[in-house]
Amino acid sequence: MTYDTLAWTVADGILTLTLNRPDRLNSFTVEMADELESAFKRASDDPAVRAIVVTGAGRAFCAGMDLTRPGNVFGLDESLRPTLQDMTERLDDPAIARGLRDTGGRVTLSIYNCAKPVIAAINGPAVGIGATMTLAMDVRLASEKARIGFVFGRLGIVPEACSSWFLPRIVGISQALEWCYSADILDAEEARRGGLVKAVLPPDELLPAAYALARRFVDNRSPVAIALTRQMLYRNAAQPHPIEAHRIDSLAMFHTSLKDGKEGVAAFLEKRTPNFTARVPDDLPPFYPDWAK
Amino acid sequence: MTYDTLAWTVADGILTLTLNRPDRLNSFTVEMADELESAFKRASDDPAVRAIVVTGAGRAFCAGMDLTRPGNVFGLDESLRPTLQDMTERLDDPAIARGLRDTGGRVTLSIYNCAKPVIAAINGPAVGIGATMTLAMDVRLASEKARIGFVFGRLGIVPEACSSWFLPRIVGISQALEWCYSADILDAEEARRGGLVKAVLPPDELLPAAYALARRFVDNRSPVAIALTRQMLYRNAAQPHPIEAHRIDSLAMFHTSLKDGKEGVAAFLEKRTPNFTARVPDDLPPFYPDWAK
Amino acid sequence: MTYDTLAWTVADGILTLTLNRPDRLNSFTVEMADELESAFKRASDDPAVRAIVVTGAGRAFCAGMDLTRPGNVFGLDESLRPTLQDMTERLDDPAIARGLRDTGGRVTLSIYNCAKPVIAAINGPAVGIGATMTLAMDVRLASEKARIGFVFGRLGIVPEACSSWFLPRIVGISQALEWCYSADILDAEEARRGGLVKAVLPPDELLPAAYALARRFVDNRSPVAIALTRQMLYRNAAQPHPIEAHRIDSLAMFHTSLKDGKEGVAAFLEKRTPNFTARVPDDLPPFYPDWAK
Repeated sequence: MTYDTLAWTVADGILTLTLNRPDRLNSFTVEMADELESAFKRASDDPAVRAIVVTGAGRAFCAGMDLTRPGNVFGLDESLRPTLQDMTERLDDPAIARGLRDTGGRVTLSIYNCAKPVIAAINGPAVGIGATMTLAMDVRLASEKARIGFVFGRLGIVPEACSSWFLPRIVGISQALEWCYSADILDAEEARRGGLVKAVLPPDELLPAAYALARRFVDNRSPVAIALTRQMLYRNAAQPHPIEAHRIDSLAMFHTSLKDGKEGVAAFLEKRTPNFTARVPDDLPPFYPDWAK
Repeated sequence: MTYDTLAWTVADGILTLTLNRPDRLNSFTVEMADELESAFKRASDDPAVRAIVVTGAGRAFCAGMDLTRPGNVFGLDESLRPTLQDMTERLDDPAIARGLRDTGGRVTLSIYNCAKPVIAAINGPAVGIGATMTLAMDVRLASEKARIGFVFGRLGIVPEACSSWFLPRIVGISQALEWCYSADILDAEEARRGGLVKAVLPPDELLPAAYALARRFVDNRSPVAIALTRQMLYRNAAQPHPIEAHRIDSLAMFHTSLKDGKEGVAAFLEKRTPNFTARVPDDLPPFYPDWAK
Repeated sequence: MTYDTLAWTVADGILTLTLNRPDRLNSFTVEMADELESAFKRASDDPAVRAIVVTGAGRAFCAGMDLTRPGNVFGLDESLRPTLQDMTERLDDPAIARGLRDTGGRVTLSIYNCAKPVIAAINGPAVGIGATMTLAMDVRLASEKARIGFVFGRLGIVPEACSSWFLPRIVGISQALEWCYSADILDAEEARRGGLVKAVLPPDELLPAAYALARRFVDNRSPVAIALTRQMLYRNAAQPHPIEAHRIDSLAMFHTSLKDGKEGVAAFLEKRTPNFTARVPDDLPPFYPDWAK
């Protein structure tokens, strides 16, 4: 499988997914949305991919929606006049799915469902969907040259890509509101102080740092346990009562104990490196109804 | 419309709502609750109001419930013995609504539903309901003379005004519990370190800073996009799954794209200032069932 | 009542619950789970206990599951093949409850339901369930010798004890994911910087600091108001809309006002120390359906 807007490179179990329209500052198009959605599903299902680093080719991460191309903002079918009922009952109806669904949200939902850890290596400007797509990634590292802006307010539109769900979970409700209202372009250090990025690095240290972090999530780890950990933290925390976490915890402990848990404990007791053999997606249990292997 | 307990002043699109019982340290009464609830609804619906700054007249922000006047704590109808079922099915029954509903909560729910950004300019003591009413505001700025206390525990009562919903979203669950258990009076710097206030300012710089921040939320912004952004961040983040945000994102992008989004993108491409013409409340879409224009 | 794995000591209204298998670094067993679950229920119902400090005997807090003993990981009935439906409909069926339910979760759910403030005094290594059990406690203080690790990933298993519900509420989703993926052992200062522990103390100042904090939650406080405050902050914040908090606020204000609220306000107006007489559990109102007195 090849992509027109992305580069897919796997080395030592780590997929680098590069937004790859450098002549257009990797600006976002419907094609890029389709390819990102497809690539995150592929990465989720590919046992050779253990973690994902997302970055941009050239000097930008992603300069936002390509405003010269059809897609969100332009290109919506204005005759449709959709309602919340439509978006609930007919979300996969082609007229809705292709004509109305927020393209950024299709991407962040595919990241949300991904079975692998995802690290954003924000190498330069990340604006609009370029900023919001990183919110569904687990950890954000930024180059000193990164600039991050939730600029929708300047364009008369709203934050998208499920950013209203993700951003308050990362930086708290008050910081999220301020950044979205002001639509300011944040430099990397402001983004770090606000809790959005974990660390700010010189440009040539960004990808090495992302890979080093990814290695800590991969080496001597059970892919199944990591995949379940990711889904459990996002999903269980959003439930109204911890008993919902307890149900899943009990099932997940049961399922992981059958194979990798036994090996992990044996290796620990024998003071040796574990040899985990459970695989994603084949050994993922089906206990989240909307999240099948 | 005039108020007995408030001052309403609009300048350049920014409403200053001043708690105005300075001889009583702006302490809270049922009349103030009624007037605040009414004022936030009015501000939400008034196209001339683009953002709201709330402050106190004189040396206090709000010294808490006026304990010499009927209202919460005193004045409840003890014969009613309400149940959770009553509060669910009969919330608007006058016997419940006037005799039992937490007066502070009536105020914070009206702030929650407000279509305009709200900034608290905490100029002095903000205690009890004086503290909790600020939690439904989007950003808190504090004078060096501010003192903030969730003091309910000292009075044998509980944090109210939906503060149990708002405070953990702002400062995290552990800090919220500690402050409510201890019932301490925090100085401005402690409140800032704990994540409750964005900045601490000399007294005479407080209102200018609040207005400067409000301007960044107003100038060259679409009022409809800002109103939707506010509701989306509070509401979507509280949903159990990001797909709920995606439904609303798609609708909000559709609705804003019909008018201000087109203008915003055109202005961006033409490198000019946008002229947004959509108005609150007339152009607000009706997609949150409990939030009609 | 005596315990084999715990020490129970009450002084001046503060219960010290000590994990007490120092020769095994207080490692966790099914017996310890049963005793902790029982002890938190007892503490919740005992009017003589006003706050709880949890610590470990000897040099460790809790070194995690005792991997040499039956329990989670080992000891599960592999023939059961449980489903989410089983965990929903048959959670208290003995086959599920004893054979499958995560033992750590039984403990943290009993802490969640506890009517008293709970402080973790982490005196040394707190690893696996030793780390996750502290997440259901309200405030964490750490000795300079504390080491905290969500190490499940190294063992091929998942974070348990409802930690996926609690940890993101304390430190945010991104830090929670990073710590669970990396399975690193954090030193006390890293845990403080990440927002997990409130303060780091020299070893001999840890328990005095925990007791001093507990006193601020107890002295001249209404036990009923404190118990309701605890449940309201955990439960109401997890609801999708603040109106749910408003219903409970109104009921809680009504119930507390009947007795301790009157006394608290009278004492405030008379500038004297209040004499609160409402008691836990007898005076707790029944408005959370799953949380009976």
